[in-house]
Amino acid sequence: MNSLLSRRYTEKVRIIVHGGAGNIPKNNTGLYSVGVKKAAEVGLDVLVSGGSALDAVETAVVYMENDPIFDAGKGSVLNKDGFVEMDAIIVDGADLGMGSIAGVRRVRNPVKLARIIMEKTDNNMFIGNSADNLAKQFGLRLESLSYFVTDRRREEWEDMKEGKLDPMRRSMYSTVGAVALDSKGNVVAATSTGGIPFKMPGRVGDTPLIGCGAYADNELGAASATGLGETIMKIVLSKTALGYIKLEGDPMRAAVRAIKLMESKVGGRAGLIIIDPKGNVGIAYNAPKMAFAFNEGNKIVYGTEIP
Amino acid sequence: MNSLLSRRYTEKVRIIVHGGAGNIPKNNTGLYSVGVKKAAEVGLDVLVSGGSALDAVETAVVYMENDPIFDAGKGSVLNKDGFVEMDAIIVDGADLGMGSIAGVRRVRNPVKLARIIMEKTDNNMFIGNSADNLAKQFGLRLESLSYFVTDRRREEWEDMKEGKLDPMRRSMYSTVGAVALDSKGNVVAATSTGGIPFKMPGRVGDTPLIGCGAYADNELGAASATGLGETIMKIVLSKTALGYIKLEGDPMRAAVRAIKLMESKVGGRAGLIIIDPKGNVGIAYNAPKMAFAFNEGNKIVYGTEIP
Repeated sequence: MNSLLSRRYTEKVRIIVHGGAGNIPKNNTGLYSVGVKKAAEVGLDVLVSGGSALDAVETAVVYMENDPIFDAGKGSVLNKDGFVEMDAIIVDGADLGMGSIAGVRRVRNPVKLARIIMEKTDNNMFIGNSADNLAKQFGLRLESLSYFVTDRRREEWEDMKEGKLDPMRRSMYSTVGAVALDSKGNVVAATSTGGIPFKMPGRVGDTPLIGCGAYADNELGAASATGLGETIMKIVLSKTALGYIKLEGDPMRAAVRAIKLMESKVGGRAGLIIIDPKGNVGIAYNAPKMAFAFNEGNKIVYGTEIP
Repeated sequence: MNSLLSRRYTEKVRIIVHGGAGNIPKNNTGLYSVGVKKAAEVGLDVLVSGGSALDAVETAVVYMENDPIFDAGKGSVLNKDGFVEMDAIIVDGADLGMGSIAGVRRVRNPVKLARIIMEKTDNNMFIGNSADNLAKQFGLRLESLSYFVTDRRREEWEDMKEGKLDPMRRSMYSTVGAVALDSKGNVVAATSTGGIPFKMPGRVGDTPLIGCGAYADNELGAASATGLGETIMKIVLSKTALGYIKLEGDPMRAAVRAIKLMESKVGGRAGLIIIDPKGNVGIAYNAPKMAFAFNEGNKIVYGTEIP
């Protein structure tokens, strides 16, 4: 179990991002570190110029969706049939507003579609083709299927297809997510993913499920998860972790407790970022590494391992 | 707020079912009552002959999926484009195993597919066409699109299309669900739905989302929800309600508290059935009516309104 248990950070505005948890390959740690640092920076810029937590979180997640190192947007892992199927969610702590999508194939930035569903429709969640069509109706940028496929993911997929690489033993879940607190006291959470490599078409993990991949409530805080979706779901990890903040006294202990609960009840590897309504930071993971970044004042603290 | 707050039931084996909450039309209350009573009976038969809560809950939900009065399986409401899109979930309290599907169009009994996903795949949730294909692979019965469409739903749909009937003012959510406790002390929950009438294609509500439409954990109990999915989701109603059992001392108060929380935070109409690990019954709803049934010994208590 890794966490920043001994440290406490409080700020007026705060953003925390993650870029996934697991066995981050040694030759890639630099790219993950730079990616999450940059995402936190662009999100923080929004907050310090008076922007909302909603805009900050969206900006940070869009940055990581566009960065091909992460498993979200461009660079998403390929499913068994060789194409991407992406999931995303956004939750607004101010009114529990939410938007969520599963199984989109053509939306350049799934988190933007999640936000549009929250703000422009009477519904919360759309799936598959219908969600891609909705994005088109709302004027979001669509891409060809090949836009999302990077050489690295194509090579991995080929190795998996030939049996040279076990998708389950790869165990790096580089789902991205962000939580933020803005100057008005609102908290927001968002998460975006391409899912697990070589997944069966149609498989959905925790990311787009409210309470699992993300949750936010101004009274509780905001949380975003990453890791093996199948075990995260069973514990409803994000909401469970937020429920522990009051009991444990701070979000760091709450994150640790939620992941320990998952580990003891259903196993699995996961990471969590949590912010409480005062801007305190919670980061914990039971995977070897987790890419994370957050602001301490104007400085970004970041890395792929908690020292 | 309606509940059976003043009554307490404890049995060795127990099944509780619901057939939706809302404005049950007067000329249909009999059909709803008979439907839930029959579903509880077939589920109870499984339990008293030593069967598992898993089999009991599946049997009860299959019964209601096949009964065209309910909005699940045959008789599901039609979406804006005039066809059904069905969602279902099953959760096993023994090990937090779960299976879930969203947006299937051809599976005769969606709850059976949910169970197969739980028992025969490494994943928890599948959506859309891919889920229908999975059903086929596992030898489940598929039907033509027209099998699911009843005259009543077709007429409603035509009235909505012509603007003679406001889908939102109809406000009867006849999602079905069941929770049970078997003689080994295991609890299980399942929920199945066609969603809301005239919904946009691809829209998903609370039903297939773990913690929202259903949850089960032998340490906590089991819950199944019905009502406006958009508000149920925001509260993660089923898991939230189970979390209240210890605090409130019994599942009836826990169900009431969870629905009050939803009402105060995000509004909406919903109903909940809850069973605790000892077989105590919790039923509450803030809609005008709710179709429910449960066994009291070998007798079935049932109705569409709590006296």
